[in-house]
Amino acid sequence: MKTSVFCAASIDGFIAKADDDIDWLKPYENDPHRFEEFFASIDAVVIGRRTFEVVLKFGSWLYTKPVFVLSSSLKELPKLPKRAVCELINAEPGDVLKQLEQRGFKHLYVDGGITIQRFLSAGLIDRITITRVPILLGSGIPLFGTLPHEAPLKHVETRTYPTGLVQSEYELVR
Amino acid sequence: MKTSVFCAASIDGFIAKADDDIDWLKPYENDPHRFEEFFASIDAVVIGRRTFEVVLKFGSWLYTKPVFVLSSSLKELPKLPKRAVCELINAEPGDVLKQLEQRGFKHLYVDGGITIQRFLSAGLIDRITITRVPILLGSGIPLFGTLPHEAPLKHVETRTYPTGLVQSEYELVR
Repeated sequence: MKTSVFCAASIDGFIAKADDDIDWLKPYENDPHRFEEFFASIDAVVIGRRTFEVVLKFGSWLYTKPVFVLSSSLKELPKLPKRAVCELINAEPGDVLKQLEQRGFKHLYVDGGITIQRFLSAGLIDRITITRVPILLGSGIPLFGTLPHEAPLKHVETRTYPTGLVQSEYELVR
Repeated sequence: MKTSVFCAASIDGFIAKADDDIDWLKPYENDPHRFEEFFASIDAVVIGRRTFEVVLKFGSWLYTKPVFVLSSSLKELPKLPKRAVCELINAEPGDVLKQLEQRGFKHLYVDGGITIQRFLSAGLIDRITITRVPILLGSGIPLFGTLPHEAPLKHVETRTYPTGLVQSEYELVR
């Protein structure tokens, strides 16, 4: 079971403003920064409750693959569009991986600040692709949090885009 | 008067561990990542008291250009090596720039977490070169802090190095 993070962050490390606003990403939406290629390579998405709620506000359902929402507080999912394949999971990262592995999933896309941090803390992320957006937000929701240990990374590749995006791909050395 | 930041940071945004340890940078010391070219382009260095104290511990004096130490607590500098050109300044970033401009300096190298953050908050940084080191430190002294405003950046160039360093240069749009 492989796990990947693929996310955009400001130069000062935020993935959203404090009120979850990601409008600052809009100028880059049409930059073909390999998200589609990445999304084609995964077979399930794991997000936290907060990211789930942000995604719901988009109006249309984004994901064309099964989505697992990690939450210890949600008891059931709200009504979702018919084509949404979405399940609630209340488990620790290690157990999430075990459950999804048993169900045949092979490559998980782990997304959302807290969820990424929990998987990183548990040493359960294999690959991180960060697309750095040329802005200092000054405050917001951080991509990274405190980890119980250092984690050396192996730089795989960096790509730059005409809009100023800089995308770096790293493997985690286990 | 031009002001530049040139620093290394972990992927999670730290410039040192919580105890000021920068041993994790040692494997990259001999990577020729343009520090010499950058240092040749500046004519004075502005650092905070904390960075100054870290530099003192190195034993030998690093800087071959005048160094200004920002501090509101230090009353005088300790005894320094003879070749050190070093002065104490107790002033806000804007006043520091005015004073040094009047003295004929044209390009300042602003270094140290808090000092960089204070100059950024005041909108007084023109250029940032961040060298991303392939490691998640998990905790430490952050490069960036809270800013009172967003700051769009213009991506100038990104260079990658065989050791995995990724160096991105940005101009601040004033």
